This record gives sequence, C-alpha cells and structure tokens, in this order.
Amino acid sequence: MKAAYYGGSRQIHIRECVPVAPAAGQVRVRVSHCGICGTDLHVYLGDLDHRIRLPEVIGHEGSGTIAELGPGVEGFSVGDPVVVMPIISCGQCPACKAGNYHVCHQLKVIGIEAPGAMQSSWTVPANLLFPLPRTMDLQQAALIEPVAVACHDIRMGELQKGEYALVLGGGPIGALIAIVAKHKGARVLVTEINPFRIAMLRRLGLEVVDPRQPGPNGTTWVDRVMEETGGAGADVVFEVTGVAAGAEMMTKAAKVRGRIVIVGVFAKPAPVDIYKIFARELRLFGARVYQREDFAEAIEIVASGAIPGHELITNVMPLDQLRHGLDQMATGGDVMKILIDCQS
Amino acid sequence: MKAAYYGGSRQIHIRECVPVAPAAGQVRVRVSHCGICGTDLHVYLGDLDHRIRLPEVIGHEGSGTIAELGPGVEGFSVGDPVVVMPIISCGQCPACKAGNYHVCHQLKVIGIEAPGAMQSSWTVPANLLFPLPRTMDLQQAALIEPVAVACHDIRMGELQKGEYALVLGGGPIGALIAIVAKHKGARVLVTEINPFRIAMLRRLGLEVVDPRQPGPNGTTWVDRVMEETGGAGADVVFEVTGVAAGAEMMTKAAKVRGRIVIVGVFAKPAPVDIYKIFARELRLFGARVYQREDFAEAIEIVASGAIPGHELITNVMPLDQLRHGLDQMATGGDVMKILIDCQS
Repeated sequence: MKAAYYGGSRQIHIRECVPVAPAAGQVRVRVSHCGICGTDLHVYLGDLDHRIRLPEVIGHEGSGTIAELGPGVEGFSVGDPVVVMPIISCGQCPACKAGNYHVCHQLKVIGIEAPGAMQSSWTVPANLLFPLPRTMDLQQAALIEPVAVACHDIRMGELQKGEYALVLGGGPIGALIAIVAKHKGARVLVTEINPFRIAMLRRLGLEVVDPRQPGPNGTTWVDRVMEETGGAGADVVFEVTGVAAGAEMMTKAAKVRGRIVIVGVFAKPAPVDIYKIFARELRLFGARVYQREDFAEAIEIVASGAIPGHELITNVMPLDQLRHGLDQMATGGDVMKILIDCQS
Repeated sequence: MKAAYYGGSRQIHIRECVPVAPAAGQVRVRVSHCGICGTDLHVYLGDLDHRIRLPEVIGHEGSGTIAELGPGVEGFSVGDPVVVMPIISCGQCPACKAGNYHVCHQLKVIGIEAPGAMQSSWTVPANLLFPLPRTMDLQQAALIEPVAVACHDIRMGELQKGEYALVLGGGPIGALIAIVAKHKGARVLVTEINPFRIAMLRRLGLEVVDPRQPGPNGTTWVDRVMEETGGAGADVVFEVTGVAAGAEMMTKAAKVRGRIVIVGVFAKPAPVDIYKIFARELRLFGARVYQREDFAEAIEIVASGAIPGHELITNVMPLDQLRHGLDQMATGGDVMKILIDCQS
C-alpha cells in the first residue's frame, strides 16, 4: 500500500498509503492503474506550485474497483470497476450557474488541488464515479480520462464525419484526438516531430507528417493539406503542441470559416496571425478537460476496442518508478503513454 | 467631374473623371458622398501596394444616384438613390462554393482591386446595388457600408439583447459597433484612448473608459467589467484596435465561453494569451466585411435614424481635400468619420 507524493520541483516521495475512510457521499477506490499526464509532468517540474499544497498525491487518470462505500452512497457496490472524473466544481460561480461546471472559476483538479490517484487507495466523491463494463481491462480503462479529453475537443470543434482534421502534435492527447476523429469518420493528418511517435502513429494507420521535412518536389505540409482538400484547407485544426510553433502553424492551413481547437497548454502568450483569423473568418475554440457526456462517450469508445492501448501504452511501471517515468517524459524519451501500476 | 487616384505611398492625384459607359449588367452611379475608411488610410500609406494597380481610384463607402443603366439591368431606374456593396467574389473557389462569398479566396474590394467611389461618376456591377428609401439623406447613406461592417461583426459575435458587449477601440467602426449593439439592446462599454473620441462617444450616451486611467480606488477597466457583470465577464468582446495592446486586452475580461470578435486589421502577428482561451473556453471569431443580409440590415438601421451621423461625421470635404483628410487620420487628428463630397 503505497502513495506517490509530489514534494516540490522534481521531488517525488513514495510513502505508505493510509486508506481514508469514505465520509458520506464518498467512496474509497482500490486504484488499479493511473496514467502519467503532461499535467503531472508540469507539476513535477514545479510549473504548478502556485496551485498545489505540498506534499500532495498526484495523478488523475486512475482506474480501479470500489473498496468501500461511504454512508448514503447508492447505485454502486464494493468490487465495481470504475473511473473517476477528476474535477470538482464550486457550483456557485457564474460559469457553474451557466452550466459550464468544467470551467468553473474555482475548478479543482483531483491530483493537483486534491489528493490524486497515484496511490493504492483513493477516496473520492461518489458523484464523480463512472461505472465500467465488468469485462473492461483496467489498464485500458486508465486511458478513459485522456480519451474523454479527446472527445471533448472533437465535440467543441464540431468535427463531422467526412471532414478533414489536422492535428498539430502527436503526443498522447494528439494521438487520441486523431484516433477518435478517424473512428468518427473524419480524414485525419497529424503533424509530429518526434521520430518514435511518428513511427508509432504510422503503425496505427494514421497519416503523419513531420512539418520540418519537405515533401515531394519541395512541397510543405501546408501544400499537402491544401492538395488533399481541393484547395480549401482543413475543416478543423487541433492545436495540441502548446508551443509557439504550433500557434504559428494553426492558422496556416485552416479553411475559410474553419475551426481551430485550442487543446495545448501554453505556458506564456505566443504570437498569433490574427490577420488570418480576420481574413478567413477563422473560429478558435478553447477546449478544457471534459463534461460528463464526454466521459460517458470515452467509456463507450474504449469499450468498443477502438483505442489501441497495446501500442499507446508503452510502459507500465510500479509506483516507485514514477519519478523515472516523469524523467523519461521530460527528456523526450521513446514513450507515449506511461501507466503506473498502483498496487505494485 | 473629378476623380481621386492613389499613385503610390502618400500620393493622391486629382484628375478629370471620365465617365465609363456601363456595359451589360452594369450601372453608372453619380456618386454623392464617400467616407474615408481606415483601409483607405492603409492604401494611402502604401501598406496595400501589393494589392493595388497604380494609379487607381480609391474609396468604397459611396452613396449616390443612378445616372445610367447598362443593357439588361432591371429593377432600377435612373435617379434611384443607391449604395454599392463593394466586394466582388470569384464564385468558383471553395469559400464561394460553401456560400462564404464575402471571404472568397480571390476577393476583390472595389476601391483597391477595382476603381472606387472617390469620383463623380462610378461604374459598377448592378448586382452590388442596394436601393435606398427616397427620403434618405445621401450623407447618412455614406455610413451604410461601415454600419454593415458593424452588423456583420455583431451577427458573427451572436450578440443577444441584454448581453454585455465590450468594444476595444472607439474609432468609426468601434463606435458603430457600440451604437448598433446598444440599439439592439445590449449593454455596452467602449475602451478608447483618444480624448476627442472619448468625449464624442460620451456625448452619444455611450459608456467609455480609457484603459490607461485607473478608476475609483485604483480599479482597472477589467475590474469594472467584472463588477458590472457580477464577476462573470463580458459576453462578447469586439477587438477593433488591430494593435498588440488590443490583442492583449481581448482575453482579459471575457466570460467563460465568451465570444471575441476579431474586427481590427493586424499588420503583423501579435502575442495572444492562448492559455486564457483554453482555460476559459473562449471563442474567437474572425469577422470580415459583410454579407448581403448585413447590408440590408444596415440600410434599415440608418433609415430608422439610429445612427447619429450629425456627430459621427466630423468633416465633409471636397474631393481635392482628400489628401488633407487622410493626413488628419494618419496623425490622429480630432476627426471621426470624414466624408468626401464627390461632386464638389
């Protein structure tokens, strides 16, 4: 029974996990697996120290089974396989009152502002639980949270079957957006610069281009998008890089009135070709986390077998290797999604 | 009978106007008045030399009466008061085929890529004409084109009655957006730094704040928006400055899922707080010129008397004073909308 605590920049402490008895409306979950997210990396590097109270258990991509029910919790039983939608809203702010609880003014993310899933035993509000089919593998289930992000991004981008989607950045979230978009019948092109990821995405049957490499006859990735869309441009662009190069690219190949979905987390303002937004009447939509319908859809998609977890999950590590996994991500190692086995 | 030709950076040549007999599907218009637009200023300063064939008659905010009908033109008579929607689409590109003719890939703006309205006699395609009520003053009618811009911007921003609109920049277009938004029942706050414009907008009953000046108790313009919206933020923000300061401001006071309409013409990329777009799920919409319904609505609004042309039109000058008017605009003089009397 262990727990992984973030203790300040680049410090992860593995300690004994002390199970917290669930209060009214809570459940205690025996965590099976928890994915490492880019956000965990930001925490590890100290970028979110203004949001986190030290020490804190990190992780928000957990799957598991119910170990104990708090008073008054109905509709669940001990042993049920579940995932947890790891966001807590205030219910009182203007965003919550308008129904946008997932972008609450005081949004708390479990694993940042509340104890996360990187522990053997995790006590959470029961209203954040989603039941899983009993047949679902709990490693695959740890992908549900990032798949819910992809579902939300695609829904915000209003991507339709048959449309052309350009995904800038083929890391775990970009890959899942591409996979889900293709699953929904879109044509998809991913741009990525990491050779390991490029090779993996191609093995998964995705079209991938390295935007730094010229194509046939010196053509660019923009030329390719234009050629493949009859000169129109992409219907939807997903900006998943969070860096200035992506901000520069995102306006270059969108069609007139095309949609650009902002998924990447930008550490600082970046130059944007605002003239292009004006001249082509482009539409930019910010897309943050997910809403309940996205989580529900993600469970369906994972249950359908559409997510190739066998490729995407490149590593499964015990809890005491978490720091090693974070270091691999920080140095751009040959990894896609790393799972932590929270019982080992 | 005169015409004003742009002849290269800061050169305006006044020459004799040679009436062009209208071909099939064309009409010749006796131009009454033509407003000077910010775009004309860009032309004058040489910023659009890549688009314009020298020498060319500039101007696209013309009002007038029909002087001569070309073969096959029906539905109009000599003497009819008209305005001209000054954009020509190719009809063949992907944008045109999708119905977005106003953001045609090969869009031609009359007054840039084709002879404009700053002349006594102007020959144009009849399908761009909009008839005016016979009672409409033709100086007021010269405001219809920029009012159509405002109508389009407001429509793209999906501004609803009772919503809170923040207009960044109170020049002619910003002022018209504010006036039309208020006319449609929105609450409106304008930010502007030019004292002459601030005073005028306040005389017109608009709420205006200089974003550089602290408010009561050292509060900022953002505090004011938040206070006036119960902490939510503005429903719609109109970016009408086209400069980096506006790009920085536009994300600061928008509500969660608020809409930001890009109206200003940015000469170069500007830093944008993309994180804020993500975190608050903001929505940015580019809005360029207008569609036919916007022109029709603008005529109705001007005809209703809702546009205070007596204040907004600060100067009416003869054609040979055009250069003087442009210089006044270039130096930030005490002007709002300058009209050119194309018959004097």
